[in-house]
Amino acid sequence: MAGRFISLEGGEGTGKSTQAKALAKAIESKGITVHLTREPGGTPGAEIIRNLLLTGQEDKWNMRTEALLFAAARAEHCQSLIEPALEKDEWIISDRFIDSSRAYQSVSGQLNDEDIMALHRVGSCGLMPHRTFILDLPEEVAARRADARDRGDSDRIGGRDSDYHHSVMSKFREYAKDEPGRIKLIDAAESQEDITANLLHDLSDLLD
Amino acid sequence: MAGRFISLEGGEGTGKSTQAKALAKAIESKGITVHLTREPGGTPGAEIIRNLLLTGQEDKWNMRTEALLFAAARAEHCQSLIEPALEKDEWIISDRFIDSSRAYQSVSGQLNDEDIMALHRVGSCGLMPHRTFILDLPEEVAARRADARDRGDSDRIGGRDSDYHHSVMSKFREYAKDEPGRIKLIDAAESQEDITANLLHDLSDLLD
Ligand SMILES: Nc1ncnc2c1ncn2[C@@H]1O[C@H](COP(=O)(O)OP(=O)(O)OP(=O)(O)O)[C@@H](O)[C@H]1O
Ligand SMILES: Nc1ncnc2c1ncn2[C@@H]1O[C@H](COP(=O)(O)OP(=O)(O)OP(=O)(O)O)[C@@H](O)[C@H]1O
Ligand SMILES: [Mg+2]
Ligand SMILES: [Mg+2]
Repeated sequence: MAGRFISLEGGEGTGKSTQAKALAKAIESKGITVHLTREPGGTPGAEIIRNLLLTGQEDKWNMRTEALLFAAARAEHCQSLIEPALEKDEWIISDRFIDSSRAYQSVSGQLNDEDIMALHRVGSCGLMPHRTFILDLPEEVAARRADARDRGDSDRIGGRDSDYHHSVMSKFREYAKDEPGRIKLIDAAESQEDITANLLHDLSDLLD
Repeated sequence: MAGRFISLEGGEGTGKSTQAKALAKAIESKGITVHLTREPGGTPGAEIIRNLLLTGQEDKWNMRTEALLFAAARAEHCQSLIEPALEKDEWIISDRFIDSSRAYQSVSGQLNDEDIMALHRVGSCGLMPHRTFILDLPEEVAARRADARDRGDSDRIGGRDSDYHHSVMSKFREYAKDEPGRIKLIDAAESQEDITANLLHDLSDLLD
């Protein structure tokens, strides 16, 4: 069976990491080699860039620099892990990918979607996931979940205000409308088990 | 008088840092505020990225990641230092800039000039120097000078083989031919003082 690349997207606390893990386990149980990975990061070099991006003051990087650093981490992730795995017909399940850059980095208004995609073309040959799940959850519920987990800690980007996160979620919904074949909007208010079952059901065409 | 942006380019040991310093001093003596800076780096954030780029193993970064990291450092440099200085009618003299990325990052054949310029457009609004001096020196002479200075130490990129550096120099000469208004090829085998005088002579149109 061909290698497949699945990404999970959505705001903080919507359950991306939980579902990425559950999905990887379920697909591995079918005898498929699965790489569970995340962005920014996923390889040693990309994790170094992740650390530059997520720690420090809110104003540590200018917006355009931030967009280039995300693209650099993604380029490293694609070249060192994702592309070689797909060539070996293995699966990749990534906790965030390009749609997070599109949603988070374009909100400032300093960069548009074309800019982000231009960086992706140069850095990562424009590689797109075969399927993307956007976990959709009312913001209050997501914030409560993330708070319960982190006790109020947040990184450089998660710590931005609620207007920012609201705009990010509208972007995600817009992408789902624009690319209904690749991107599926998933109700993330259900139980963990039900959500995993929904994801697997939705992947049946890729698993046959 | 309007702010001006001058870059110095060329291979290792051709005298870029020496001339950048001498030029800054000569222009400052005319009562102009001059920022002497360098790439990669030039601001605290960009110097952090410089350090990622120039230290470590030769194969530390994939070529596309490397190109994005150079563009990220440049974006930071432009947004935090170069653009604000030019807006205040100050001068910038930069030891390397975009033409180094064009020459060094395209040699691998994995990225072309359009790719590098696309990154520059997104990261730094495509900002170009008003004038660029390429210091041209036979490779053996440059290597002897750099060796005498460094006692054989070289960074991640300077340490690449002589074919690489040869191709870089051909690229530089090609750019000078393509953009004769902006880019001047300078004979770097002359004495330091004569070279500085040549640069100042060439800048007379910008200094009036
Ligand atoms: N379906 C669910 N119902 C209730 N709680 C959930 C559900 N899915 C995840 N959680 C819990 O919500 C919290 C956030 O989940 P998770 O860490 O997977 O979110 P995330 O989207 O990866 O967040 P972040 O963006 O911060 O990494 C965790 O404590 C997790 O156990
Ligand atoms: N015109 C010159 N004639 C002779 N020696 C020179 C001349 N210009 C510079 N040098 C000497 O050559 C060495 C290299 O010069 P410099 O450090 O300015 O080069 P560079 O282009 O900045 O090198 P790098 O790319 O490694 O930073 C130094 O020791 C410097 O003093
Ligand atoms: Mg998570
Ligand atoms: Mg130097």
